[in-house]
Amino acid sequence: MIQFEEALNIVLGKTVPVSSEIVEMTESAGRILATDVVSDINIPPFDKSAMDGYACRRADLGNELKVQEIIAAGQVPQFIIGPGECSKIMTGAMMPEGADCVIIVEHTRETAKGLIEFTAAKTTDNICFKGEDVKKGELVLPAGLLIRPQHIAVMASVGCTNPLVSRKVRVGILSTGDELVEPDIIPDTVKIRNSNAWQLMAQAKAMNVEPFYFGIAPDEEKQTLALIRKAMASCDVILLTGGVSMGDYDFVPSVLKEAGFSFHFKSLAMQPGRPTLFGSNPEGKICFGLPGNPVSSFNQFELLVKPLLYKMMGHHYQPVILRLPLAVDYKRKKSERLSFIPVHLVAQSEIQPVDYHGSAHINALSGAYGLMSVPIGTTEIRKGEFADVRPV
Amino acid sequence: MIQFEEALNIVLGKTVPVSSEIVEMTESAGRILATDVVSDINIPPFDKSAMDGYACRRADLGNELKVQEIIAAGQVPQFIIGPGECSKIMTGAMMPEGADCVIIVEHTRETAKGLIEFTAAKTTDNICFKGEDVKKGELVLPAGLLIRPQHIAVMASVGCTNPLVSRKVRVGILSTGDELVEPDIIPDTVKIRNSNAWQLMAQAKAMNVEPFYFGIAPDEEKQTLALIRKAMASCDVILLTGGVSMGDYDFVPSVLKEAGFSFHFKSLAMQPGRPTLFGSNPEGKICFGLPGNPVSSFNQFELLVKPLLYKMMGHHYQPVILRLPLAVDYKRKKSERLSFIPVHLVAQSEIQPVDYHGSAHINALSGAYGLMSVPIGTTEIRKGEFADVRPV
Repeated sequence: MIQFEEALNIVLGKTVPVSSEIVEMTESAGRILATDVVSDINIPPFDKSAMDGYACRRADLGNELKVQEIIAAGQVPQFIIGPGECSKIMTGAMMPEGADCVIIVEHTRETAKGLIEFTAAKTTDNICFKGEDVKKGELVLPAGLLIRPQHIAVMASVGCTNPLVSRKVRVGILSTGDELVEPDIIPDTVKIRNSNAWQLMAQAKAMNVEPFYFGIAPDEEKQTLALIRKAMASCDVILLTGGVSMGDYDFVPSVLKEAGFSFHFKSLAMQPGRPTLFGSNPEGKICFGLPGNPVSSFNQFELLVKPLLYKMMGHHYQPVILRLPLAVDYKRKKSERLSFIPVHLVAQSEIQPVDYHGSAHINALSGAYGLMSVPIGTTEIRKGEFADVRPV
Repeated sequence: MIQFEEALNIVLGKTVPVSSEIVEMTESAGRILATDVVSDINIPPFDKSAMDGYACRRADLGNELKVQEIIAAGQVPQFIIGPGECSKIMTGAMMPEGADCVIIVEHTRETAKGLIEFTAAKTTDNICFKGEDVKKGELVLPAGLLIRPQHIAVMASVGCTNPLVSRKVRVGILSTGDELVEPDIIPDTVKIRNSNAWQLMAQAKAMNVEPFYFGIAPDEEKQTLALIRKAMASCDVILLTGGVSMGDYDFVPSVLKEAGFSFHFKSLAMQPGRPTLFGSNPEGKICFGLPGNPVSSFNQFELLVKPLLYKMMGHHYQPVILRLPLAVDYKRKKSERLSFIPVHLVAQSEIQPVDYHGSAHINALSGAYGLMSVPIGTTEIRKGEFADVRPV
């Protein structure tokens, strides 16, 4: 039984990078950038007005000013600003030569037709200077970035319309166990519906990898081996759920071994999620044997599988971990394992454990904001004390 | 000029609900549930073992026990447990009649072939009781829920393979301004690239509505009106960016009026994002005139448009707003507007404003964790004091 941090290091150490591909900028949100993006222009590309107003010389603020022209965004100024002169200018328009500030419309008064004066005591420049946000050739988005909508604006601005991104990792998912039926079947006396595989499929899709479902492997070695081999043929990573605890019918480890995998750990000092198996084969394929309970399986995907899949695509995943105070006392009897407890977010950013019956509790995560971690050795966290929470 | 909270109320008050449609469970993550989901079974559907071990009578814990059978998950027990008897049982398997607890494998020793004894001092039941997580007929997922991967497991468990979800809102997006060129063009002297529309397209896609792009409207009324009418023909909501400030060429308001919209506000006490226009027409179509700067446009989508689009789909969007301490002092000169300042997350869940040149600063949001709100009247928040942060 090893600890979570050690397990995560082992997992990340087995990463095999995937190749990259060019996609449309408009399809790239949620993907991982595979190369640095640099700007092909200065931003702003010229000194531009930050406001609607009048471009003039600061030395002239006390004087009546003659309006020479109206400069709209997208137009080239026709006049140079000399003493006693100004040009009306729109937000985003190019500054005319000679002017060194823009006085805003609200701070001016028309004194006669074509003449204005400044009515306030002072003004800022109201100019966005050429290259002040981004210089031509400057790195704007680094390789390994998880692309979010705000990065699309940056790509658009620097002309990166066809970014190079990492290929989506192909993840094969299969469930194991004679007790399972698919969700569209009403289970008879001793059966239960397969929920883990579909949850894993959704978790994989939500992080923008490509999941493939290979069905329910029955409690029979040959058929399980055949399904694993089928998944290995097309996928980079294989996730199995169930069949990895100590029961007599839990032969997933032996079948994975027969399929060519060697194991780097089989058991973790975590609750839930102890029976978690991780292996790789000489061709760089990776397998996880995840616990059969839905909360355990969900957590181990978030905690171990997701960082691996991101790293394979070149992204150093650093989950947001917030340090938040508890709204109530939390207690547990045993403390030899690191616990991840589903919590709500209540008023003032406090957290409160949800009603939670253990790792088989199918709807425990339904309303959860995140997972609170309770370190090894800790049996109690009092109201008002802080704990680490990972939003899920 | 009205305040943000009032604007949000006005916006939400104009909601027209969209229709619903049936989708595959596997395609439903990210969508909004349009009906309550109730369970068609008890979960667990029978008393089941929570561990691998031996099912027996608690009264017999001190005695040597005869093993009658091995009960695997998915199998019906063949024997009733009488005094001095037990059955080996796997995690998830049905409890045999007569047994009232499961002793775990690690707490047993084989005394002779087919005989075991309990080696620990005490044990919990290790039984998950029928219906303890969910009762048949119980509401498990409420209408209006934003479906996440953990909810897919619940749907799978209760047989909801074809959930009813809200139709995706159709959002028409167009940019305005002669200064704009599309991202694949290298802008000449006075032009800039269109980034807002593509950012809005990505923001809309990321929240699972259906965005449609209608191009750049030039600074010419007839062509702008034609594009708005085209967007109105197929979309529920229209987002325009640019052309709504006080400049002489900002005729978006008059064109929208000609297209049949009446306005509910035109200016907000917010920074950035003051020139934000909101209107509706008698047919229930909705329009936003968003500011032309990329940070303003991004923020107003998150703050005003997103809650509206979710409400149209039946989801009461409650953004996570965390109350976090500042890592440095924050100051501003003016305080008559509510500010949203991009911030990083640093160690110990502290926040720190990013390098930010104002609403045109294209890459200010690139590395931001969230938006810190600075209330009207506040000019300073000191290191260690708390502020509200909305992750973006």
